[in-house]
Amino acid sequence: MAAAEVNPAPAASETAGETARRLILTCGKATLATLDRNRAGMPYASLVLIAPDAAGRPLLLLSGLAEHTANLLADPCASLLLDGTEGFAETLTGPRLTLSGTAQLVEGADKAAASDAYIARHPSSSFYAGFKDFAFWRFSTEAAHLVAGFGRIDWLEPQALFGDAGR
Amino acid sequence: MAAAEVNPAPAASETAGETARRLILTCGKATLATLDRNRAGMPYASLVLIAPDAAGRPLLLLSGLAEHTANLLADPCASLLLDGTEGFAETLTGPRLTLSGTAQLVEGADKAAASDAYIARHPSSSFYAGFKDFAFWRFSTEAAHLVAGFGRIDWLEPQALFGDAGR
Repeated sequence: MAAAEVNPAPAASETAGETARRLILTCGKATLATLDRNRAGMPYASLVLIAPDAAGRPLLLLSGLAEHTANLLADPCASLLLDGTEGFAETLTGPRLTLSGTAQLVEGADKAAASDAYIARHPSSSFYAGFKDFAFWRFSTEAAHLVAGFGRIDWLEPQALFGDAGR
Repeated sequence: MAAAEVNPAPAASETAGETARRLILTCGKATLATLDRNRAGMPYASLVLIAPDAAGRPLLLLSGLAEHTANLLADPCASLLLDGTEGFAETLTGPRLTLSGTAQLVEGADKAAASDAYIARHPSSSFYAGFKDFAFWRFSTEAAHLVAGFGRIDWLEPQALFGDAGR
């Protein structure tokens, strides 16, 4: 499938919430912005794979050896950029979504469902998902900012994205 | 040209510095992580187009109306993620580069060269580069972190990327 088909321009009838939810469901990767634990006040941007849980909230599978994981353990505040502009001749006319909030370790009985949802989206992750130094994290959204092209810019409440799950 | 040709796997003979410089020269877009001026201690990730200046340092063209621009005016600390994984069957085997540092407004006589370099890389930006609410910014790198696939991870000195220009 060509990238242009994966990332169509938002239809005029698509609401901002619908575009945002579509990006969460279709973007398999994102940029994670954390706070650099070794450089006070410095953000740190890195690449992650993401998968939606049953409510659409992004799940991450992170290595304990990675910089972003050590950053999150020191401070859970983070932001995710989901880039739906691939395939657009003019990148800045394509949709992208910023989620701001915190990332939490998935623990206890919740782990199995997270693993199932993540591996369903990223089958090859099954090879390392069980490694001792990998763990699932869930992103909890406090604010969402959608830029769906020039002049199509909206702040969204988490409820518009995740319904009853809230954030 | 297919994405796989744009982003070949780093050759075994390619050094970390060479891979990093290649990403800076070939990635036309990046994720910018800034600090959310309205949410203390919260990073904010957004999409930007980038173009290398004569020394290879990333130039940005930002709208004064954008969130990231207001964030940078409040605090210049920022990070850029350059994602060279497009076209890799397994995303996490592809190269990506984190630059950490600050972004500065390009001012005075330096503006013309920045504009020339940026428009050479992004010709359609010529339509808005001259708008009053757009301005050029240069990213100044303090640290660079390259992940060139599983287990190929390096911290690089800015001099390895930008030579005599330093950072």
